[in-house]
Amino acid sequence: MAERITPRAESYSDWYVDVVLGAELADYSPVKGTMVIRPRGYAIWERMQSALDSMFKETGHQNAYFPLLIPESFLKKEAEHVEGFAPECAVVTHGGGEELEEPLVIRPTSETIIWSMYKKWIQSYRDLPLLINQWANVLRWEKRTRLFLRTTEFLWQEGHTAHATAEEAQEETLRMLDVYRRFAEEYMAVPVLTGVKTEAEKFAGAINTYAIEAMMQDRRALQAGTSHFLGQNFAKAFDVTFQTAAGELDYVWATSWGVSTRLVGALIMAHSDDKGLVIPPRLAPTEVAIVPIFKNQTKAEVLAYADTLHQELKKQFRVVLDSDENNSPGWKFSQWEMYGVPIRIECGPKDMQSNQVVLVRRDTGEKEAVAVSAAPQRIGELLQDIQKALFDRALAFREANTRDIESYDELVAFFEADGGFARAAWSGSPEAEARIKTETKATIRVLPFGNEQEAEGKRCVVTGEPARHMAVFAKSY
Amino acid sequence: MAERITPRAESYSDWYVDVVLGAELADYSPVKGTMVIRPRGYAIWERMQSALDSMFKETGHQNAYFPLLIPESFLKKEAEHVEGFAPECAVVTHGGGEELEEPLVIRPTSETIIWSMYKKWIQSYRDLPLLINQWANVLRWEKRTRLFLRTTEFLWQEGHTAHATAEEAQEETLRMLDVYRRFAEEYMAVPVLTGVKTEAEKFAGAINTYAIEAMMQDRRALQAGTSHFLGQNFAKAFDVTFQTAAGELDYVWATSWGVSTRLVGALIMAHSDDKGLVIPPRLAPTEVAIVPIFKNQTKAEVLAYADTLHQELKKQFRVVLDSDENNSPGWKFSQWEMYGVPIRIECGPKDMQSNQVVLVRRDTGEKEAVAVSAAPQRIGELLQDIQKALFDRALAFREANTRDIESYDELVAFFEADGGFARAAWSGSPEAEARIKTETKATIRVLPFGNEQEAEGKRCVVTGEPARHMAVFAKSY
Repeated sequence: MAERITPRAESYSDWYVDVVLGAELADYSPVKGTMVIRPRGYAIWERMQSALDSMFKETGHQNAYFPLLIPESFLKKEAEHVEGFAPECAVVTHGGGEELEEPLVIRPTSETIIWSMYKKWIQSYRDLPLLINQWANVLRWEKRTRLFLRTTEFLWQEGHTAHATAEEAQEETLRMLDVYRRFAEEYMAVPVLTGVKTEAEKFAGAINTYAIEAMMQDRRALQAGTSHFLGQNFAKAFDVTFQTAAGELDYVWATSWGVSTRLVGALIMAHSDDKGLVIPPRLAPTEVAIVPIFKNQTKAEVLAYADTLHQELKKQFRVVLDSDENNSPGWKFSQWEMYGVPIRIECGPKDMQSNQVVLVRRDTGEKEAVAVSAAPQRIGELLQDIQKALFDRALAFREANTRDIESYDELVAFFEADGGFARAAWSGSPEAEARIKTETKATIRVLPFGNEQEAEGKRCVVTGEPARHMAVFAKSY
Repeated sequence: MAERITPRAESYSDWYVDVVLGAELADYSPVKGTMVIRPRGYAIWERMQSALDSMFKETGHQNAYFPLLIPESFLKKEAEHVEGFAPECAVVTHGGGEELEEPLVIRPTSETIIWSMYKKWIQSYRDLPLLINQWANVLRWEKRTRLFLRTTEFLWQEGHTAHATAEEAQEETLRMLDVYRRFAEEYMAVPVLTGVKTEAEKFAGAINTYAIEAMMQDRRALQAGTSHFLGQNFAKAFDVTFQTAAGELDYVWATSWGVSTRLVGALIMAHSDDKGLVIPPRLAPTEVAIVPIFKNQTKAEVLAYADTLHQELKKQFRVVLDSDENNSPGWKFSQWEMYGVPIRIECGPKDMQSNQVVLVRRDTGEKEAVAVSAAPQRIGELLQDIQKALFDRALAFREANTRDIESYDELVAFFEADGGFARAAWSGSPEAEARIKTETKATIRVLPFGNEQEAEGKRCVVTGEPARHMAVFAKSY
């Protein structure tokens, strides 16, 4: 049953929950902080997985699977890593009815268990690069959770690669960041900023963390994917060396990179509206919903008409025919809007007489009548139009809510008002970064590529010192 | 590097481990009882997943995802279930640095958490059937483990369906058993017996468990998949009722069914030989490996010849070109045999002159020369032939090692000798079943469909009482 959705203007966070529950994407589970991904939500994740998995394989990666449970001692081998992750771990102390000799943690991420195996598998430069990805569940104990965006358990992929040189590892880090950017823009229709994170925001154990950052409809940033250059940190922690082509011994260079079911949350927040879910066609499990409109005396004829259309469209599109007789057409229209299906087809007795159908776009609500014979082609065009329109709308929104900021007062005022993305010069001082966070709740989301040149001659908005970076500040999820 | 494989005749279990490690399918992990599935092993599992997932979707199922961690109290709500699974559970007692109020177990199977959600989602007969599948990792603490066949953590799918009537749930149970049978026979090329398990062997919490059972090359049985009719047991445990079409209140009827990464172990054991892995083409990540044979003066020409072939075959097949220059052709032949690639193509200077290539079947070692122009068609035929030949060989082996047994002495002698599948009349008495297990280590693998009629007029081989079943006994994994 289509339930009432809190309008975004009333409460953005209530609206979000209403859409997630109303579109049956996920549900609260009886285990604190975790969620159930329902079939309609999981089908979106499956389409994301399928697209990403192809992109990973095209760039030479193979999938593998490593154990869920990691000895606590492994985590401790990399100092920053344990500091970052130990507080978030779920700990298994008993197994098979007995207390374990060493507690095992449920993986919060798999660098440590994977590098313990890489030690076995890597001896020579001929074993490199090693390009492995894993699709898995991970656990990070969270105090405040939010469906899809932050849950104790989530599904993700984590790439872990090993290279002979720092340059190759750097290239890999940026290659995968670009895969994420392309996926976000071309599939999710979500424009993203790319760049490097500050020391304060980087992954625990990385030399550099790169990220894609998207703007949600409430003008907050959402980190949608990260790619880490790990240097030789994990190779040193797990003593993974290799013989170089020149016959010397060196530590292996590493990257890791991941995106998660959080992307489903990003997708919802980026495009949906007060009627419910809006999804870009490329990720929509159902592209087209046919709703026949009939009364008792026209039922058989209209259903046959709709069924013929259904059979025809099935050859090309992911389409459902809603021939349920318990609910009114109007009720069904709302329901398919709630579910976010990109195109609805209405067809009633009059349409049948004129041999046409009515196509309704989910994103704009625009209706158009087309001849049945022209419907497949027109639907194909519309799906492309919708995909592009969603991206364009999101990009225009981001640009309209991105501001170049010249002074600290202006920065504070920006985040006291509606906020958005603030581009401002920064000295590079962690204290200045921390002060902004404390006083405005905004953090540096990324230092965009090439920001150093842009910063030349500018002064830090906090300290007035010469600026080293143009940083993008925002409140974030 | 191709390592020596222990011959099957010397030690079947050492041979198995050598093949798993040598073909780089899996590796031991530093966490006791768990394994790492390496890319070559995971690629087989991906092909299994893809085929099964399509079959599940064709039969109306949708995927979803439920939490990894289950409150300990949930497990206790179904008496047989907790008795069966509690001793195998890994228990999380701490999370986020604090002791938990209630311990959480890592799912050994998900009936309890799923039925706690079904209570929220099912109110009326209109909500039924609910046909959900989950791809996930599960944990069962095991004392004695074996790569793929029995590990503390494994990957699987678990279907959980809810129905309005016992008949529908029974139909579903058997439908999914048949999906598993078809998958085993048509994809894995492994013939299976189907039937029902005895009370002693059924799933903890089921009314009836149905299984597919395969014979391995050491004549032992391997349970490759199970489908359970759960009656109203879990609906009662979680108080899941629905309003029937007649307006009454009834408990919901349930099934669950699963197969796991154990299937990869079954695949290896069913077909492989003393040279390494043998995999049926439909599940082979690589169908064809091209090994060019050249000396220094012919290198460029032969590589170009092989490359042209590679480009052509790539359009139709999963093919790799092994143009590595560090290893000899002979070494490569062994390596691709170890990896189990169904067809190897050899092409050297002489082949080039005659415009031909040599195709070598992995299963039989047979070689044939074919004109390059005819290669794609011939490869297509050979792949089909190999798929069928593997099935036929496995079926002939099973039949040659299945015996109709008339007396208890004969049964004991059968299992003291080579063993295999013993078909024998059984009274239905659990004591008789237990005695056979104690004295021969063989258990009843299935009571095949229709076995009751076959048993008419026969007498139990243990007790001499009138037989109720014709049972299939075997030692098993």
